[in-house]
Amino acid sequence: MRSLFFCIILVVAVAATDSNPDATSIFNGEGCENDQLFQTRIRPQIQQLASNVQRIIDHVMSANESGRTYRQLAEFVDRFGSRLTGTKNLEDSIDYMIDLLKQEGHDNVHGEPVQVPKWTRGNEWARMIKPRDKKLNILGLGYSEGTNGQTIEAPIVVVRNFTELEQKAGLIPGKIVVYNFKYESYGKQAIYRHSGASRAAKFGAVAAMIRSLTPFSIDSPHTGMQSYDVNVTKIPAISITTEDADLFQRFSDRNEEVIVQIYSENHNEKDKGISRNTVSDVRGEKYPNEIVLVSGHIDSWDVGQGASDDGAGAFISWRALSVIKKLGLRPKRTLRSVLWTGEEFGLIGVYDYIKKHRNELKDYVIAMESDIGTFTPRGITYSGKNSTSQCTLWEILQLMHPINATTLTISTEGSDVQAFYENGVPISSLDTANDKYFYFHHTQGDTMTVEHPDDLDKCQALWTSVSYALAMLDDRLSR
Amino acid sequence: MRSLFFCIILVVAVAATDSNPDATSIFNGEGCENDQLFQTRIRPQIQQLASNVQRIIDHVMSANESGRTYRQLAEFVDRFGSRLTGTKNLEDSIDYMIDLLKQEGHDNVHGEPVQVPKWTRGNEWARMIKPRDKKLNILGLGYSEGTNGQTIEAPIVVVRNFTELEQKAGLIPGKIVVYNFKYESYGKQAIYRHSGASRAAKFGAVAAMIRSLTPFSIDSPHTGMQSYDVNVTKIPAISITTEDADLFQRFSDRNEEVIVQIYSENHNEKDKGISRNTVSDVRGEKYPNEIVLVSGHIDSWDVGQGASDDGAGAFISWRALSVIKKLGLRPKRTLRSVLWTGEEFGLIGVYDYIKKHRNELKDYVIAMESDIGTFTPRGITYSGKNSTSQCTLWEILQLMHPINATTLTISTEGSDVQAFYENGVPISSLDTANDKYFYFHHTQGDTMTVEHPDDLDKCQALWTSVSYALAMLDDRLSR
Repeated sequence: MRSLFFCIILVVAVAATDSNPDATSIFNGEGCENDQLFQTRIRPQIQQLASNVQRIIDHVMSANESGRTYRQLAEFVDRFGSRLTGTKNLEDSIDYMIDLLKQEGHDNVHGEPVQVPKWTRGNEWARMIKPRDKKLNILGLGYSEGTNGQTIEAPIVVVRNFTELEQKAGLIPGKIVVYNFKYESYGKQAIYRHSGASRAAKFGAVAAMIRSLTPFSIDSPHTGMQSYDVNVTKIPAISITTEDADLFQRFSDRNEEVIVQIYSENHNEKDKGISRNTVSDVRGEKYPNEIVLVSGHIDSWDVGQGASDDGAGAFISWRALSVIKKLGLRPKRTLRSVLWTGEEFGLIGVYDYIKKHRNELKDYVIAMESDIGTFTPRGITYSGKNSTSQCTLWEILQLMHPINATTLTISTEGSDVQAFYENGVPISSLDTANDKYFYFHHTQGDTMTVEHPDDLDKCQALWTSVSYALAMLDDRLSR
Repeated sequence: MRSLFFCIILVVAVAATDSNPDATSIFNGEGCENDQLFQTRIRPQIQQLASNVQRIIDHVMSANESGRTYRQLAEFVDRFGSRLTGTKNLEDSIDYMIDLLKQEGHDNVHGEPVQVPKWTRGNEWARMIKPRDKKLNILGLGYSEGTNGQTIEAPIVVVRNFTELEQKAGLIPGKIVVYNFKYESYGKQAIYRHSGASRAAKFGAVAAMIRSLTPFSIDSPHTGMQSYDVNVTKIPAISITTEDADLFQRFSDRNEEVIVQIYSENHNEKDKGISRNTVSDVRGEKYPNEIVLVSGHIDSWDVGQGASDDGAGAFISWRALSVIKKLGLRPKRTLRSVLWTGEEFGLIGVYDYIKKHRNELKDYVIAMESDIGTFTPRGITYSGKNSTSQCTLWEILQLMHPINATTLTISTEGSDVQAFYENGVPISSLDTANDKYFYFHHTQGDTMTVEHPDDLDKCQALWTSVSYALAMLDDRLSR
């Protein structure tokens, strides 16, 4: 997490909120008492599932099992570290997962090949050399080109937003543009990371330095994807820390000239690579063609361990199937786990999957995703507008009282699963107390230290329970 | 902030707390109503000061003045960056301060020379090369020697504490010891940073890597002072991030061998340098020989900007004198600002000052220090046991209601001012909502981004008011 697609969608969601205050809202079972279908058919089915859901919770939280998701995730991310799209290391980690899922007894374990870009971070550094010498803590952005073996040396022009960029157009040729926006949310400001370099290049900038997308920093640069417009010079796009962005702003406010040097060997390879979405199932006994999908992405940025983004989301997803297998539960629908590849470079894996499985999408009950943190769970989000379906999910979540994760939020937000939403499949995201998620996002700090065994157990219990229940109800969730 | 001295003292304070629950306690004016001296003589004097104290608060918080401490501090730390003891840059920054204090109209502005060590951070890096390759984000510790032009390559031995170090003594020869303690507080665990290398060297370790002293990290290494025992091999002492310490612990728990490479050009110079404590006064009109001292240290570690540690403490201290000058207030006692040097290398400046001024210490009313953050102020601490003095400070703090900073905590904690406490002078520290202080402490993240103009204004108003009041009372604070 996260990509261009997410950003754009979030911006749309924010805009939508202005005219429709219900775009993201908590659902508290309003109207369910008068929903005949729900009351007479679905609710009794959910009540019948209560004992098995309790078994799932008890099992995951039991003395023998507790901490298993954390331990298995740690073994994986400690072994492979970060898993950049296009690298052999990512493919090795996918091989490991395919072997592991077979050992875990999943059905239909396989990788589905996906063509992916290869972007390479080479040596890179930047220094402020005037008014004094200072090394800058930077990370080049994904898809950014480097400096062609040269060192760029140029004064900076600091702008707070694109309006100021246009106002300062005359100053920009030959300069390095520094974007020092005010961070309100990831969704609102990600456009600077995504498009800042191209927009600056149009005015003749030689490089763009973009404030890291975070509300909190310990001089921590955050990488992420950017994208070049067609027909613009592909100038280097570099993430700087909030501290250095603030420093440049202060120098700028005092009219002190700042000169920066940048060196970067980052580049896009000419050839494409092949990666894989990792698919595994627990085959449904009664409605095998109907799919309840749980997912996270296995690729990560090339910093940290990709534990929070999105190792943990991937692991609670495939582990949901393992828990159900281990308890001997036999879902009526097929439970499918997909570990997406290429998410960070633009949701590449999921769009490839959609293309290949388009004709089956009518049979997808829901596409669930965990990709915004696995902190203490609050519940889930759900995109569907059908009130009976909302009542159904709300009733299922009431079974989560033992782990205090009963909140249903109606929201269309998502990352990989947006591709399903665009194709008519309802989507759901794990909702956790993720206030600090963006502190670590796309940084060297995305490690197992962010994750906590107890929280992962609770997320695991919730994720397993909800997907199991949706795979069991004879009345399929209406879209 | 902070040094060996602080650590040891804190440990003592913690031990003292076990037998004496009042070692650190909030004073709420208990018994003051029956204190005849306080009620009949001192309290009326404080009430007479109320209008001038209100003038101080109003002035500092006024539209024209608000943000001044922040702006002046930013100009200083942006210009000089970090200010390591023994460097020309620190001396340049002291020259700047001496000029500035003269411009501000302080009396008796001068530097008092202090011999200081010269420690140099050269190139340094570390990598984990087994079980996989990973660059480690490190900072060598102050006074640490380097690797003599070689690259050390050795397996690691992870220990949680000194007991485990002794238990694993047989494993340690030729290895790199990793200290992965559980962080409870800076005071409790700083001993690992300070003494970890020497203790490991005694068992034959070739280097020591010490978990950063912080409750929170974004892969952020924290430097700080360490010290070699006599007659031990001076092995490299290196701070690693909490994330890497956790990673090494997990590998160790799984019995996976970890091999690390370390290269470091860090070294102690043979010759000493000369630095200066920066002294300035507002001369007292009635009791000029009696001193109310306000202080912070001007030196910093060689990372970040030394804004929080301790530029801000130094700036609210000298600015207290400037505010009093500007308002035309004429204190009865001498108000003295000292910007200590060499704090980070072992309270070098303050001990030199004590040595030179020992005969005058009987005339020091109080030694005030701000060196644990300038967040939203709560009040001050005070070390004195005399109940009339406690009532006096408590009554003065009640004048701080407009800025909600009225809390008096009885505590003997301090950093530089401990040297005064040891010599019978009561000490006081600025007390702020500093829960996040150690997040940034001794890291690249110690920048102006940690500081907030409003908080600095409130700290400034409090610091100025308290020091002014203590310089005005005809009844000097009893020890």
